[in-house]
This record gives sequence, structure tokens and C-alpha cells, in this order.
Amino acid sequence: MTTTPSDAVEVPLEAVVTRTFGTGVPESLSVLVPALTADLAEIDFVLDRALTSTYPRLREAATYACRSGGKRVRPLLMAVAHRAVGGTTARPILALAAAFQLIHTATLVHDDVIDHAEQRRGRPSVARAFGLPAAIVAGDYLFVRAFELAAEYPRSIILRCGEACADLAEGEILQETSRFDLTTGVERYFRVIEMKTAAIVSAALASVGEIAGMKPSIVDALGEYGKAVGVAFQLRDDLLDMYGDPDLLGKPLFADLREGNPTLVTLDAYAQLTGEEKREFEHLFALRRKQPHDLLRLRQLTDATGAPSRTGAAATAWASRAVNALAVLPPGPHHTLLEVLARGAAERSY
Amino acid sequence: MTTTPSDAVEVPLEAVVTRTFGTGVPESLSVLVPALTADLAEIDFVLDRALTSTYPRLREAATYACRSGGKRVRPLLMAVAHRAVGGTTARPILALAAAFQLIHTATLVHDDVIDHAEQRRGRPSVARAFGLPAAIVAGDYLFVRAFELAAEYPRSIILRCGEACADLAEGEILQETSRFDLTTGVERYFRVIEMKTAAIVSAALASVGEIAGMKPSIVDALGEYGKAVGVAFQLRDDLLDMYGDPDLLGKPLFADLREGNPTLVTLDAYAQLTGEEKREFEHLFALRRKQPHDLLRLRQLTDATGAPSRTGAAATAWASRAVNALAVLPPGPHHTLLEVLARGAAERSY
Repeated sequence: MTTTPSDAVEVPLEAVVTRTFGTGVPESLSVLVPALTADLAEIDFVLDRALTSTYPRLREAATYACRSGGKRVRPLLMAVAHRAVGGTTARPILALAAAFQLIHTATLVHDDVIDHAEQRRGRPSVARAFGLPAAIVAGDYLFVRAFELAAEYPRSIILRCGEACADLAEGEILQETSRFDLTTGVERYFRVIEMKTAAIVSAALASVGEIAGMKPSIVDALGEYGKAVGVAFQLRDDLLDMYGDPDLLGKPLFADLREGNPTLVTLDAYAQLTGEEKREFEHLFALRRKQPHDLLRLRQLTDATGAPSRTGAAATAWASRAVNALAVLPPGPHHTLLEVLARGAAERSY
Repeated sequence: MTTTPSDAVEVPLEAVVTRTFGTGVPESLSVLVPALTADLAEIDFVLDRALTSTYPRLREAATYACRSGGKRVRPLLMAVAHRAVGGTTARPILALAAAFQLIHTATLVHDDVIDHAEQRRGRPSVARAFGLPAAIVAGDYLFVRAFELAAEYPRSIILRCGEACADLAEGEILQETSRFDLTTGVERYFRVIEMKTAAIVSAALASVGEIAGMKPSIVDALGEYGKAVGVAFQLRDDLLDMYGDPDLLGKPLFADLREGNPTLVTLDAYAQLTGEEKREFEHLFALRRKQPHDLLRLRQLTDATGAPSRTGAAATAWASRAVNALAVLPPGPHHTLLEVLARGAAERSY
């Protein structure tokens, strides 16, 4: 498998936005598309160039992980945010966006090992395709290349990256200790997703503000926006894992139920249920090997509680929080696009 | 488990040197011990401080990994080298030595997952004690903290760290692809250990020279010394895995044979054997589950070829290469101690 820039852009921006955020770019903002498409292509180019390993198998596994038709949420948000604070070319953020995308990919590769995930985005996971040793090493390698890319930035930026990675690790551990445990409170669930998903988006967006030389209030606002978009995105993700279309998602449903990861929707449903149904829910959720009828029964019990619509509403509320955080940014089309993307994160259907 | 500086220094320098390098500090150099002991204590302190996680389980797993009574080869070599090039306090290298030790520990944690190792230094491995998910995440976390520590150095140093980590990953993958395969050439075996073991020692030592402001010839000499010591150390390690005392080593013998990792000693033995014995060696080596009598038979077949003493001689030759690389350094007691340590690496019995 060779790596050429022309391979890198697999998906045009319109499709990325649609796939990622469940919304097209509004007609009024379509003028922004060509430059942002070019930004994403440049980020992909830098990312590809970072994965030059002498050893074909490592390069292949790392490239496979990065080329899984991913949503590229972080690079897109970073590119739009950079232009929203006045950036006219993506150059200053190219290496950083590539670094954050590599970190994200590294954690997905390791997560799939931990979660025994067979599939990721409609293809075998790295662990499945290349084996566990290669998946562990490829994840490490992606982390390392990410930090090499980050090394060209000031120490404060490298530390933002580092802290977000530490949060990721902590979120993963906290999630591990909550497995198959419905007594995990909602508060703890939010701590998990803030650390596992939102911290890295927050760090990526705040870094964009810092690199652009923005004052602290803008940097913090971008960080807050990133965090809120991350939470909205994850809440929607959890909902899609139970109610989405597996063909559109590129992976089977019910991964969270199978792995015993409590989510807002299951915690909420569990809190609402009473008597025999609550005991049944608890029993089924705790099963280490769930059969298809167990999973469908868990969904059926969840439906009746109204938990799905409340989780959807929570996602929308976090999207609004993201939009509100942007208020201190100058108005303009990229600002508007960030708002569109935040709302899309909470409403996308895949 | 709380982390206090006083916990950190578990083993006095004399014992570290003896354990690591199979040699005591010669009487003539004993005057160096107090300052170097203090250097190691300071490095441990910085390392401990870096492992402050909000989540007890992650901190516990990371601390457990770092506190396994490890040999601390890298910090010791860095501290001695730093003083050999004129350093009077360890301050300039504290964070970097801690970073390299964390990287090393991270790779051990992930290696033990990959190799299904139950034990490490007389205790259950992290994967065994905390489970596979925690081991993967703790390894990631140690990498991240290492790069945060490295962030206080110039970009060139961070890139040295990064390249060494990439080499490590590549070495691991190359080793994976050679598993259970005795047709792996000796050349390829050396590539594996140069990347898996020697590259990080080389980068650590070269970084010390660079931080001390040495000219490129000294920096390169230290890097060459580090590489050669790393190779000598690994050759001795491979030999001890077949011929060492498991009680002294803190782990069962024959890990390489069980995991199917070819080493110089097995490759050499295989090359020497002929006829029926060669076929038997090949057959036994390829077994995915070897019984104790298989392992002992492999060792018996190896003995008769003289491969062990040739591997020992190769380790000694690499130690000499390390000593020779130091020739450009100014003479002095720390220079002499580096020579003692190189020779010890090739001769230690545990």
C-alpha cells in the first residue's frame, strides 16, 4: 500500500460534513467549501507524511487505521475554527490538526483491542485485520508520531495535547471500572465522556485559538465549544449505538450493551424502571454474553421509559451550550458554520 | 498506594549497579557513589511526580509498573554520562531521564500484553495484576507523561525521543513477523534488538550530550556508546533467559523460546545443527505450546553447538565497542565508570 497525497482525500468536504454532522453545508455557506476542502487535504497530506515507517507492516497497519474513512471531525472543526478566528491559510495548524487526528486514531485502535471490536467503520478493526500485537504497537506508533508533529509548537501546546491524552487514558480507566454496572451514576458517566471524548476536542480547539494568538477569553471559548460539541457528539453516538442504522454506521449495533458500558440512555432507562422490569433490565445488562434477543429486550424496555428522547434532548442542549460558548467570537460565515456543525453533532443519524 | 519521594528509592546505587551490570562499583570509583545516588533519587522523584492521575486505578497501575524494582539502566547511564561530560548537578537531565525511563516502562507494559507475560521482576505483570485494558491504557498514559516531560527540552531532543519510540515500535513489529521462524537471519535479529533495545539507550545518551552542549562528535560518541551497551545488554539478556537463575531474574526462564522469539543463541545453534538434530530443533522451536521437556531439550541441543559461549563473546565484543566509542570523551572517573558499566552489561548474571 503506497501513500500518496491523492489517496488521502477520500471524501469531499460536503460528504464529510454530512456524514459527520448529519447536515449539509447550508447554501449560504457553500462559498466556504473550496478552501476548507483544501485545508483538509493539506492536513491529510501532513498526516500521511508522518507515517513513514521503514517497515511495511507497521506503515500498513498505521495507514489502515488512519484510512478507515473516518469522520475527521477534529481536523474539520480545527480548520473551521482557525478560519473563524482570522486564519487565511491552514498552514499554522496543519501539523497540530494531524497530531490530534493521530492521537484520536491511536485511541480508537487501542479501544478496539480493549473492547474486542471486530469492526470499525464497515471494515475489520486493526486488531482484527493485523492481530493484537500489531494493533497495540501501531497505536503506540501513532501516539509517538503525533507527539513528534506537536513538537514544532510551543511547550504550552504540547502540554495541552498531553493533558488531553492523560484525560483520555483516565476516561478509559474510569469506563473500565464502570463496566456492567448500572449503579454508575449519570455524573460519573459524564465524567467518562468528558474525558474520553470531549477533552481532546476541547484541547484541539483551544490550541487553534492559542496558535492564532487569541486572547485567553477566546481560547477558553473555543475550548468550551470543543468540549460541548464533543459531549453532544458522544451522546448522539450512544443513542445511535442502540437506534441507528448499522449499514450507515458501518458497525453492528449494541456495542455498548455488549461491552457493558453504561450510557446516558441506559442509565436513564434503568433509573425510570421499577419492579420486575427493573430487575430484568439489571439482569440482562449484567450478562457478559448477551444474545440478540437480550439486546432487543433491553432496547424494548428502554423505549418504554422515554429515555431515548431525553438523551436526544440532552445532546441538543449540549449543542446549544457549544453555540453559546462561541458568542465571544467575531461574527462571520465560519462562526456560523461552527454553529451548524455543533447542531449537526447532536442530530446526525450516522 | 500513595507516592512519596521516600518510597521512590528502593534500591541503593551499589545494588543497582550490581544488579544491572553484574559488577560492583570498583573501590577506586566509590567516591562517585553518593552524588550518583542522589541523581537517581532526584530522577525517581520527578518520575513519581509525573504520575499524578486523578484516578486511583490508573495511578496505581502506572506506579506499579514503575516500581517493579526495575534496573533503572537508562537513568543510571544518563546520570553517569552527564557527569562524564562535565555536569555538576543532575538538574538539566532530570526530566529527560524520567521521560526515557517512562518510555521504557511503557513499552515493557505493552510488551507483556503482547507476550502474554505473567511475571516481570518477580511480580505479576501489569496485564496480569490489573487486566489487559488497564495495561494498554497505563502504557499509553506512561508514553504521554514521558512526552510531557520531554516537552521542556528543545524540539531536537523531543524528536530524538520520538524517533527512538518509532524504532521501538518498528522493532516490536519486526520481531512479531519473525516469531517461530528460525530462518530469520542473524542480521534481522540484530535489526530487531538495535531497534527494540538499543535505539532508546542510544537516544537517551546522545540527548545527554546535546543538553550539555557538547560538539556533535561527542554527542555521536555517546549515542554509539548507548547503542553498543544496549546490544551487549540484550545479548546477555537473551542468554540469561536460557541459562540464568530464575530466582535472581525474577521471572521464569525460556520466555523467548516459549514465545518463539529467535535470539542470537538459538539462531546460531540452529545454523550449527545438522541432520536429525536440526530437524528436531526446528520442530520443537516451532511448537506453539512447549512442554518443560521440550524447552530443556532445546537447551540441550543448543549446548552442544557452542552457541552460548559464542553469544557471550558477542556481548563482550559489543561492550568493547561501547568502550571504544567513549575514546573521544575526556578521561576521568565517570568516563571509567561508563566503561565498567559497559563491561558489566555483557557479563552480569542477572
